[in-house]
Amino acid sequence: MIIDCHGHYTTAPKALEDWRNKQIANLNTPELGPRAADLKISDDELRESIETNQLRLMKERGSDLTIFSPRASFMAHHIGDFNTSATWAAICNELCARVAQLFPDHFIGAAMLPQSPGVDPATCIPELEKCVKEYGMVGINLNPDPSGGHWTAPPLSDRSWYPVYEKMVEYEIPAMIHVSTSCNACFHTTGAHYLNADTTAFMQCLTSDLFKDFPTLKFLIPHGGGAVPYHWGRFRGLAQEMKKPLLSEHLLNNIFFDTCVYHQPGIDLLAKVMPVKNVLFASEMIGAVRGIDPETGNYYDDTRRYIEAANLTDADRANIFEHNARHVFPRLDAALKEKGL
Amino acid sequence: MIIDCHGHYTTAPKALEDWRNKQIANLNTPELGPRAADLKISDDELRESIETNQLRLMKERGSDLTIFSPRASFMAHHIGDFNTSATWAAICNELCARVAQLFPDHFIGAAMLPQSPGVDPATCIPELEKCVKEYGMVGINLNPDPSGGHWTAPPLSDRSWYPVYEKMVEYEIPAMIHVSTSCNACFHTTGAHYLNADTTAFMQCLTSDLFKDFPTLKFLIPHGGGAVPYHWGRFRGLAQEMKKPLLSEHLLNNIFFDTCVYHQPGIDLLAKVMPVKNVLFASEMIGAVRGIDPETGNYYDDTRRYIEAANLTDADRANIFEHNARHVFPRLDAALKEKGL
Repeated sequence: MIIDCHGHYTTAPKALEDWRNKQIANLNTPELGPRAADLKISDDELRESIETNQLRLMKERGSDLTIFSPRASFMAHHIGDFNTSATWAAICNELCARVAQLFPDHFIGAAMLPQSPGVDPATCIPELEKCVKEYGMVGINLNPDPSGGHWTAPPLSDRSWYPVYEKMVEYEIPAMIHVSTSCNACFHTTGAHYLNADTTAFMQCLTSDLFKDFPTLKFLIPHGGGAVPYHWGRFRGLAQEMKKPLLSEHLLNNIFFDTCVYHQPGIDLLAKVMPVKNVLFASEMIGAVRGIDPETGNYYDDTRRYIEAANLTDADRANIFEHNARHVFPRLDAALKEKGL
Repeated sequence: MIIDCHGHYTTAPKALEDWRNKQIANLNTPELGPRAADLKISDDELRESIETNQLRLMKERGSDLTIFSPRASFMAHHIGDFNTSATWAAICNELCARVAQLFPDHFIGAAMLPQSPGVDPATCIPELEKCVKEYGMVGINLNPDPSGGHWTAPPLSDRSWYPVYEKMVEYEIPAMIHVSTSCNACFHTTGAHYLNADTTAFMQCLTSDLFKDFPTLKFLIPHGGGAVPYHWGRFRGLAQEMKKPLLSEHLLNNIFFDTCVYHQPGIDLLAKVMPVKNVLFASEMIGAVRGIDPETGNYYDDTRRYIEAANLTDADRANIFEHNARHVFPRLDAALKEKGL
């Protein structure tokens, strides 16, 4: 079984974007709408948007199940205030929940949170609880920079994040640490901001003792961990200077990396440097890089090919494709077991 | 011959730090000093600080010549105003020039610029000219984020940087794109901010047509290019979506990467993914990571060992160790030729 732990609903019907544009246009006059109920997307529209896109490619490429969350770049937590984000997150999460209901064998949901710059992260808990309890979602996406590239929130080790972590531990759900659109002209969203955030989040964990406070908390760092595996010697050396434990003890029981690295040498490095138990298959398909690599003739984001070609045993490959995801997402594992899988 | 293109004067006598602390203490009362002339460091003190540190390690590790610039994390362009940075840069550059004079076979200077947040980069030109003409320096360090982690400056493609680029082209000096201390709690300086800046700068160049305007401009991206080589497929794919030329044409005549990657798999990836002509030997010794890697028994930043062990021909290795630096730093090449080297 092949589980893709990083998929976003990047292909939602256009009505969703139109609704959001109206919400943004009325930021200062929210009484003019739109209301959540104004968004009408039929099951047939959802089905078509998935069948012609993600599900088609999953079948072509041979992955079975995608952990599916709202489009990351559309979260745009920097827009408006908490109420703006609360309405928007509720709508986006509901759509992902409906996709998971329509295609229960192929999609299972993960939630975006209604974060907003300067607002206490604890305000996100009701949406988180709804997504877990009512929608059966198995993870969340946590944005370490709700400001969208201005980095005005405290580091992930700050106690203001702890109420979210407490809920994560209680429900046994991991967080993918994933920023959204950059509104800082310095940072290209998918070429700089995403990768920088991955590296930044890892380093925030390294310098702190967060996982002493939450020994079972799990973070999934996407995009192959940003710069982390490539600079693993630097991180090991910095931890050593700070008198931290070896990273295998200090971080690698809690931090995991996905395989959204879009060329063979990158995946080879990841597979070589990181313990296999810390690597989860993912493609972020359909996402930032949609083209075909002229050097291989294959899609850049067809990451299954890189894993197949990497120097791994069959057992390691099965861990990356399936078992590690079931370990990091215990609710996913439970849902699969309920189906006899 | 082995040229290390990335060394900072991290071991300057303590008097320098004391002077800086006084300058910072009197930011609002600069009339209370200190004046530049108040800093007294003898040649003997300079000699000792170098002979017992960088030069000792260069001899132990077998590198011959270091391109030597003021300590990156001490540039701290976010402190004070332009005058603060101007005095500080002048002092730091003069010390590096004196080191190069004292050890002409082993050190040659590169300049820090007196950048300041919100101040026109053109104000840096007099210091740049002095460093090239009077001190014989062969490169500069350009900080893409003088705010120290708040990223308030425009991208490197912005026309406000052009006066600096015009001088660089005129004098045939490259810029190492190097940030300084982060004063943003989100970003650890050497574990996140440095690497993020490398990735960010590369992407700023990728999305722009900067090198159409300056076909001979050369940027050296340190720390192995941040996340860039590890995610080379992502960058190629993003450029493709933007209808940019192949990166080999679009960027690789102008952008170069150093080898400050502190483990063998990282260097192996760099050497495999990047054309050899774009890779310059460097260690950033004595710098962020000073310890001994328990996995190898060698210093993390003894990068020569990784290059020696990488799958490279002797000719390629010589290019990385010497010839590429002479190409990217034409004034260095001229200085060596004058000595018959």
